Amino acid sequence: MIVEVLAVGTELLLGQIVNTNANQLGMRLADAGLDHYHQSVVGDNVDRIVDAIRLAMSRAGALIITGGIGPTQDDLTREAICVATDTEMVFDEDYAAVLHRRWEERGREMPDSNLRQAEHPAGAALIPNPKGTAPGLKVRSGDTWIFAVPGVPAELLPMVERHILPFLQREAGGEDAVVVSRLLRSWGESESKVADMLGDLFAEHTNPTLAFLASAGEIKVRLTAKAPTEQAARELIAPVEAEVRSRMGSRIFGADEDTIERVILAHLEVRGWTISTAESATGGLIAARLTSVPGASAVFRGAVVAYHEEVKENQLGVAASLIEEHGVVSEPVACVMAEHVADLLGTQVAVAVTGSAGPDPQDRPVGTMIVAVRTPDETRARTLRMPGDRERVRTYTTTAALHLTRLALEGVWWGSSDRNTWVSRKP
Amino acid sequence: MIVEVLAVGTELLLGQIVNTNANQLGMRLADAGLDHYHQSVVGDNVDRIVDAIRLAMSRAGALIITGGIGPTQDDLTREAICVATDTEMVFDEDYAAVLHRRWEERGREMPDSNLRQAEHPAGAALIPNPKGTAPGLKVRSGDTWIFAVPGVPAELLPMVERHILPFLQREAGGEDAVVVSRLLRSWGESESKVADMLGDLFAEHTNPTLAFLASAGEIKVRLTAKAPTEQAARELIAPVEAEVRSRMGSRIFGADEDTIERVILAHLEVRGWTISTAESATGGLIAARLTSVPGASAVFRGAVVAYHEEVKENQLGVAASLIEEHGVVSEPVACVMAEHVADLLGTQVAVAVTGSAGPDPQDRPVGTMIVAVRTPDETRARTLRMPGDRERVRTYTTTAALHLTRLALEGVWWGSSDRNTWVSRKP
Repeated sequence: MIVEVLAVGTELLLGQIVNTNANQLGMRLADAGLDHYHQSVVGDNVDRIVDAIRLAMSRAGALIITGGIGPTQDDLTREAICVATDTEMVFDEDYAAVLHRRWEERGREMPDSNLRQAEHPAGAALIPNPKGTAPGLKVRSGDTWIFAVPGVPAELLPMVERHILPFLQREAGGEDAVVVSRLLRSWGESESKVADMLGDLFAEHTNPTLAFLASAGEIKVRLTAKAPTEQAARELIAPVEAEVRSRMGSRIFGADEDTIERVILAHLEVRGWTISTAESATGGLIAARLTSVPGASAVFRGAVVAYHEEVKENQLGVAASLIEEHGVVSEPVACVMAEHVADLLGTQVAVAVTGSAGPDPQDRPVGTMIVAVRTPDETRARTLRMPGDRERVRTYTTTAALHLTRLALEGVWWGSSDRNTWVSRKP
Repeated sequence: MIVEVLAVGTELLLGQIVNTNANQLGMRLADAGLDHYHQSVVGDNVDRIVDAIRLAMSRAGALIITGGIGPTQDDLTREAICVATDTEMVFDEDYAAVLHRRWEERGREMPDSNLRQAEHPAGAALIPNPKGTAPGLKVRSGDTWIFAVPGVPAELLPMVERHILPFLQREAGGEDAVVVSRLLRSWGESESKVADMLGDLFAEHTNPTLAFLASAGEIKVRLTAKAPTEQAARELIAPVEAEVRSRMGSRIFGADEDTIERVILAHLEVRGWTISTAESATGGLIAARLTSVPGASAVFRGAVVAYHEEVKENQLGVAASLIEEHGVVSEPVACVMAEHVADLLGTQVAVAVTGSAGPDPQDRPVGTMIVAVRTPDETRARTLRMPGDRERVRTYTTTAALHLTRLALEGVWWGSSDRNTWVSRKP
């Protein structure tokens, strides 16, 4: 069963509201194992709604229309369904009585315009709306089921979940499939390198399918399988996941909801360690990300943001002579920052960043960022070269700093042979 | 000129991400005075992308395609444009060289799959992408301009704003109207209160139009005028802007690109003052926002993030007895944090936050957040009650802390009669 989603509303086209309904419906259709290939948006215009309905009827077994069934003059979905399906509009006396009663109960007189909601295409079934006044509609035309529901998310979603999805799953009958997705999260390679590493799997597998998603330096590999049951779908995913993990090794840091912040906090909690940060160019972003996780207080103690050189000297023990010798954006300075903040705040682990985020270079060229991580065993620093503008440099460096911390915690130091790794002390 | 928007990406259909690009493009197309009647979404499937492009070509003068131009196998937009427009794919040696150089500069070897980004339909012009590696494409086919841009919002929006919209406005030609928008930024009232305060202006004016946009506690009033010249459009806006400003007073903190961070840094620079932050529940977010502005180093010296109570005691001079007496989430503690961090880091101004961000309450109910601001004259604290989850509480409190700082710098203290204001010392 192919299901299409059409949103009606000029406010969507004008960008006044975001079409979260399409997102929510997409999620639920995938969960229900229903195929979903097209989403579209048109404004409050009968001709364009009619064309969109006809197009959907030419390629889908079901169409869910959101919006345009309220009581006002610009609610045109009912009319458009009549035109597109060549059906008469009828007036539902019973439903008009229900509407009148509802207003009476609230002690108010019903505006006439509300009676539009008692009109519907002949032969349409009404879908109850427990959260609002406009009922949904269900119409059969040719080989397509057409559903119309209100655009208000709180009204539409219960109607879809209680009535439309179960109905479509029954209609789909034999297919009776569940779609399960598994998100493997990686860091350390570009999207194109990951695509190279997994290219044959991508070509070879159709169930599960593979997809790559990039965000702020992390590459996610999504495996999506379809099967009669959730269990069967997970069994299809398992061997492919194992293969991806074996090829990507420690680049994979988590799955599904395991963000890098959560993974770090879990590592620390297991060891009974705490963490602090010393930040220059990232200005507190690493601390902000670590504390975004509920329960961070169990392992995160605090941070020193040392933006001005004097603050680095006074609060983080970076000697003026060290800056003179190596420059403030240097591995030795980053290591001292990490070691000092750990001592100052009494943590076993610390991460420090100093760098040149731009737009004007500071000490070293823009994009030169140094990350140091201290563990109870040793402190190492690595120099990164980050492309892009100030915001991108800061965001990507924050992500990199979290990942270098994670790798250090996992005992995967960044290869002492790496030319950009600087080791401050051995145990 | 009718402009259509097509988003490509299976992750959109699966509901894994929300199509905010369509929303942002809709807003900008409306501002630019370009007609926009259709938005659609298809997955990573060549045939369906081709059909969607052909449909758009049959009804629009321009099509903006978002997504599907990255380096991986599931990036199919380039191929689909070739098929839909009956054009050959060519390999751009010059651009390949640019890509190679870019990777070399970062000291890394370029994966072969990246070369896909040097392929494009014959005759396509490249649109520079200042924030990423994939350039956009511009292709003319029949009567339609086809644009392809990356799906990453941070990359796509500058490309649309700098290249595509100005180009389309020139193409639209005959209409010869300039659309000018002025964004007035306010803080301190709800969206509905602002709508009440300006309701008659909203009803009365059609050129400029008024719109209200809410984001993270700030309410923006957008005035949009259309006229033959930019000068004429600005003259239409000026009297309405003056009226809005007179009604809203110090709630308006800036216009257009004046973010609250920039406004604060400008205030400080004028006075020759510096600033620091002491943060508990916000975990470094205030420091991160202040340092997001280029040139922040002139006035921002540093921050202490004191998440653990011991760090508050040792680094920020919050006596255990003070915590015992008032609780750690209290006005006196926030004031001591602000005063101590100012002394420690040698700044005239400091802002401090302590609070209970949730999900579990800390000392006071979840959402109780205390902001203290120190200026050379005095230190005051205010208690805020923030609704929502942890992320929302932290974000809104960060915004509120920045605005309370701005008001203090403007000499608009938060009314000593306010029940929630606690004054630590008078000069």
